[in-house]
Amino acid sequence: MVTRDKKIPVGVLGATGMVGQRFIELLQGHPWFELVALGASDKHNGRPYAEVTGWRLSGSDMPASAAKLPVVACRPDAMPQVKVVFSALPGEIAGEIEVAFAQAGVAVFSNAKNHRMGADVPLLIPEVNADHIAAIPRQQKQRGWSGFIVTNANCSSTPLVMALKPLQQAFGISKVLVTTMQSISGAGYPGLPSYDILDNAIPYIGGEEEKVESETLKMLGEWQEGQGFVDAPLVVSAHCNRVATREGHLECASIQLERQASPEEIIAAWENYVPESQAARLPSAPERALLYRREIDRPQTLRDRDAGNGMTVTLGRLRPCPLFSYKFVMLGHNTVRGAAGGSILNAEWCVNKGLL
Amino acid sequence: MVTRDKKIPVGVLGATGMVGQRFIELLQGHPWFELVALGASDKHNGRPYAEVTGWRLSGSDMPASAAKLPVVACRPDAMPQVKVVFSALPGEIAGEIEVAFAQAGVAVFSNAKNHRMGADVPLLIPEVNADHIAAIPRQQKQRGWSGFIVTNANCSSTPLVMALKPLQQAFGISKVLVTTMQSISGAGYPGLPSYDILDNAIPYIGGEEEKVESETLKMLGEWQEGQGFVDAPLVVSAHCNRVATREGHLECASIQLERQASPEEIIAAWENYVPESQAARLPSAPERALLYRREIDRPQTLRDRDAGNGMTVTLGRLRPCPLFSYKFVMLGHNTVRGAAGGSILNAEWCVNKGLL
Amino acid sequence: MVTRDKKIPVGVLGATGMVGQRFIELLQGHPWFELVALGASDKHNGRPYAEVTGWRLSGSDMPASAAKLPVVACRPDAMPQVKVVFSALPGEIAGEIEVAFAQAGVAVFSNAKNHRMGADVPLLIPEVNADHIAAIPRQQKQRGWSGFIVTNANCSSTPLVMALKPLQQAFGISKVLVTTMQSISGAGYPGLPSYDILDNAIPYIGGEEEKVESETLKMLGEWQEGQGFVDAPLVVSAHCNRVATREGHLECASIQLERQASPEEIIAAWENYVPESQAARLPSAPERALLYRREIDRPQTLRDRDAGNGMTVTLGRLRPCPLFSYKFVMLGHNTVRGAAGGSILNAEWCVNKGLL
Amino acid sequence: MVTRDKKIPVGVLGATGMVGQRFIELLQGHPWFELVALGASDKHNGRPYAEVTGWRLSGSDMPASAAKLPVVACRPDAMPQVKVVFSALPGEIAGEIEVAFAQAGVAVFSNAKNHRMGADVPLLIPEVNADHIAAIPRQQKQRGWSGFIVTNANCSSTPLVMALKPLQQAFGISKVLVTTMQSISGAGYPGLPSYDILDNAIPYIGGEEEKVESETLKMLGEWQEGQGFVDAPLVVSAHCNRVATREGHLECASIQLERQASPEEIIAAWENYVPESQAARLPSAPERALLYRREIDRPQTLRDRDAGNGMTVTLGRLRPCPLFSYKFVMLGHNTVRGAAGGSILNAEWCVNKGLL
Repeated sequence: MVTRDKKIPVGVLGATGMVGQRFIELLQGHPWFELVALGASDKHNGRPYAEVTGWRLSGSDMPASAAKLPVVACRPDAMPQVKVVFSALPGEIAGEIEVAFAQAGVAVFSNAKNHRMGADVPLLIPEVNADHIAAIPRQQKQRGWSGFIVTNANCSSTPLVMALKPLQQAFGISKVLVTTMQSISGAGYPGLPSYDILDNAIPYIGGEEEKVESETLKMLGEWQEGQGFVDAPLVVSAHCNRVATREGHLECASIQLERQASPEEIIAAWENYVPESQAARLPSAPERALLYRREIDRPQTLRDRDAGNGMTVTLGRLRPCPLFSYKFVMLGHNTVRGAAGGSILNAEWCVNKGLL
Repeated sequence: MVTRDKKIPVGVLGATGMVGQRFIELLQGHPWFELVALGASDKHNGRPYAEVTGWRLSGSDMPASAAKLPVVACRPDAMPQVKVVFSALPGEIAGEIEVAFAQAGVAVFSNAKNHRMGADVPLLIPEVNADHIAAIPRQQKQRGWSGFIVTNANCSSTPLVMALKPLQQAFGISKVLVTTMQSISGAGYPGLPSYDILDNAIPYIGGEEEKVESETLKMLGEWQEGQGFVDAPLVVSAHCNRVATREGHLECASIQLERQASPEEIIAAWENYVPESQAARLPSAPERALLYRREIDRPQTLRDRDAGNGMTVTLGRLRPCPLFSYKFVMLGHNTVRGAAGGSILNAEWCVNKGLL
Repeated sequence: MVTRDKKIPVGVLGATGMVGQRFIELLQGHPWFELVALGASDKHNGRPYAEVTGWRLSGSDMPASAAKLPVVACRPDAMPQVKVVFSALPGEIAGEIEVAFAQAGVAVFSNAKNHRMGADVPLLIPEVNADHIAAIPRQQKQRGWSGFIVTNANCSSTPLVMALKPLQQAFGISKVLVTTMQSISGAGYPGLPSYDILDNAIPYIGGEEEKVESETLKMLGEWQEGQGFVDAPLVVSAHCNRVATREGHLECASIQLERQASPEEIIAAWENYVPESQAARLPSAPERALLYRREIDRPQTLRDRDAGNGMTVTLGRLRPCPLFSYKFVMLGHNTVRGAAGGSILNAEWCVNKGLL
Repeated sequence: MVTRDKKIPVGVLGATGMVGQRFIELLQGHPWFELVALGASDKHNGRPYAEVTGWRLSGSDMPASAAKLPVVACRPDAMPQVKVVFSALPGEIAGEIEVAFAQAGVAVFSNAKNHRMGADVPLLIPEVNADHIAAIPRQQKQRGWSGFIVTNANCSSTPLVMALKPLQQAFGISKVLVTTMQSISGAGYPGLPSYDILDNAIPYIGGEEEKVESETLKMLGEWQEGQGFVDAPLVVSAHCNRVATREGHLECASIQLERQASPEEIIAAWENYVPESQAARLPSAPERALLYRREIDRPQTLRDRDAGNGMTVTLGRLRPCPLFSYKFVMLGHNTVRGAAGGSILNAEWCVNKGLL
């Protein structure tokens, strides 16, 4: 077991961006991990973190310990002490850098899209597909890596998959139509210009719908030892929109179940869902992965995004759908559960399973 | 024909509210109608409009002519001179008041929900179901009214039905799933408290989903002389949400067509759609009822709501849907096309057809 | 001393409003006070709090203990067990109700404006004018009350006075010009309609400028045993504005000092300010009443309002003023420090001084 | 006189930015000017405007005539046909480019800050200091230019100076303290990240306070033939803030008059102010340069910014100031009156005076 006097040294790649800052925030006082390295653009050249970036997160200041850390290049030799890196790198550069770390023996937990659909790379949410880590040994063997890469899903796929898993398990799901109302932090920083979104809603987020439609199948699918990842046999259609909220993605879904179920059974499936990972009491796991609210107008972005310190997905408004079996609403915190918090939970799960 | 020196005297019921103010704004300088009466709560007791209410619409001041008009009770005997009333009354009181005016020989054009689903009441959008005015004679006969009631649809149903009509006509439609992102003005004034919506999205609007699911069928259905209104044979499922925009309802739809069609054919059906009413060149009709934009991120609430002075419905992002035939996005101005402007257009159509 | 097993039973008047809800939130788990009674409109007639109101505060749910409490009338005989009431009543009714409680032997800590300027009523901020509680005995004697009334200041006066006090003490102040940018929660709930403030700023808040201009003088003035309250000899001019922020009032001030001081001396006066009340380590007192930030663009409403759990006033941008001695910026949380939290701190101070 | 068949050919420098787009919008259908050239970064290399930039302004589409224009480098030889250029260039590069055009015989009307305080460069608002164009001949002579440079003021200085001028003229002004609430469009595009301003107010805009404090003196000062520009003998102190509004800068001012005046006299001075330029009926001049509103809560950013097509400055809330003579509120549209519209009006004034 990890103990306080022998914490695992970790680094953050892409430490100056919005998700990078969330990593730094969430790693403060972590019982298992010690943040020892911050990686970003080469140009920063070892200058202290506080000098090269402004802290963007509201409700907290830049942690003092991070402020002093030198910002180094995103290369394994620039942070030789780390056993784990959390990657908040942009997709344009994440692919090769993450491979370099895995080759160098580092466990990489990545938010970037690059390796998510890799045939031997887990796209992991411990409450959903904890057993997908079985792909790691094959990944290491096939690629000759001593480290490995585990990815977490897109911020809009994450709450959807968490909501669907208990229903898939209990009743089977064949069709999902989801429409998202995503917050501005999902676009990073500086991200969305204020002139584009104040008093506006934008019905397009580049690449987002494709991610939701494909990542969901992989996460709800199976890892079969002989065969690799097998997609779940369902069809997903996504409409992705940007609205003027700071944090939290609100999503409306209509789903077709394979077996009939009453509303009470659906809600019970959510409320009684206790995945294997929950029993492990991981440090970042919320008390409840899923919370169903009975008020007629919940979840709401502002009021529910911080449930479980941003790690709980809130559900509500289950009702029959004239076209499919049911409709409902869900909400997840996009930079916590849907990004940095999700990655850290993945690392905790790997620690728990002895992979680190 | 109506001429400037013999305009039809009209009144507005519910003149102090948000839709009431839009009526007043849009009736300024109208070539056929002369605003002569303003009705609201009895308590105002004949005091000038400017004294009893504050003007809420941005971009304009209270019209000087309206400012001086006395605010009278919403009773036919309080405004004996009007031939037409536009009703922006709340649902709690609209039903009986509108009947009283119709009985008194006045043509009522109403935004209220009360009579929309009436078996002999047109739920009218001239570009969609112009022929539904055929119900008016029967309404008058059955009820013994010398006036009549024509309603316009809910502000979120309106753009949906306008988008669907050309496709229904050309290819048939069997299923529609629509998710709305509706602006705050849809809730009237004072309506939504700012503390409820700033940095928030709310996945619930009371009664709205039911209206979209039922009104659409009536509007896309037929008036059959022997039988009355016959619903269109399609199924609609709606998710309705409130977001922090001032005006304009943005909607994402997935639809199942009955006959296959290419994207080009769909867009052509929209772009080439010229309904009978268009030929009549009604004063409030926009040059184009439907506008398809080819940019990947349009329509947007802020940027497209004022198209055609708020009377054009803007479409975009047509693409295949994994679950149905196609998905697309549409936008309509909720207090213009979806409320006051729509009502005025309905009245113009009735004038054009000799009903006034 | 107050101990856990002998907490003081307290009630909240005006419990359903926004400030009332803050009181309930902040009293949860309070070491000295036990919330036992909730008062609001008579019409609620003893029904449980959860039934008569919706919880408005984001980031928390209605506390379970409050949810079950019956909502009773705001009369002393309806809550005979309380020793203290916190009043979040609207000004229209607060005056007489608060008097009734004070007559009945209850200590009233009020946010309402009614008694603030009373000649024998402390307008109290413990860090500013802790000794003003000396007025209480006279208040009781003159009025024949066994209880008493202590008020806290308007939400925009509060941060101003806290910023000024150390400078007044060290250098003297003769003139203050302050312009506020106040958040929507200051208007209560439902308060400001969203249609009035989205994409808008409003340069008027009824009665607010007058309050800032008068309350400041009283709070920075002295209680003289023979004479009563003597206003501080300074002149204040206020411009009060509403902007689209949820919580936190941002204020720009220009001040004239009576003695010259360098910027370093000013900042030192703020940073080294340790009022008597601070030594008492009151439960709701923040570690620092005043925090000066050196970043060029701070304080900011969003990022600094929660400093010290909303009880710290954040200062910044001290620089010379071409017309007066200096200009600077300050920020205070309006519903915490400027309302409910301030009242609770006042009660704590009275407990500490043996008045309860 | 300029006639339609002999319009003056003009270009826009910095055509892709937010102010550049306003220039293009406002020049559509201009009776005197014909937009024939668009200048921006060299890299665009002659490609059509529609290909190199997205249109940002709401309420309008990219004008078709501009869409086709090639985007050329900001050099005189790249647009030899123009007689006038409107410069929306950023300060980092505007200085030298504008000089090059003036040397080449072009009349430059600039929004950039670089030459505003030049000893022989008019900082012009026709309604305020129309006679400052007398500096142009000296500018040409001293610098050996056949063209010239005329600048317009910062977007927050502009409404202030327009409000002050009639009072300065009638009563004299010695002191001005102004606090601004500026909209996001003032920061250009992409400008302010949405994550920085949603639910926030920021009390800092780089360089803004200095500009307001110095530009005001120059504009309210005099051009003396022997001596050049002589600053007005007043002192200005500015606090500049950013708030979440799209367009329009709201400003609160306290002013010290040199001679006593009643509120009625002040308002009369504003309402009766008819500057020389007004008589010229310039195409972009609003019917009224100044509009005083009597409602207690006006001007408001949203509701008053479009007065006079964005060219009118709206005033309100005149009341005594405890520290100075009076306080009041003003509002000006920052990208129209405070930027592109102001520049075009300056050019019109120069045409009117025979300088073009």
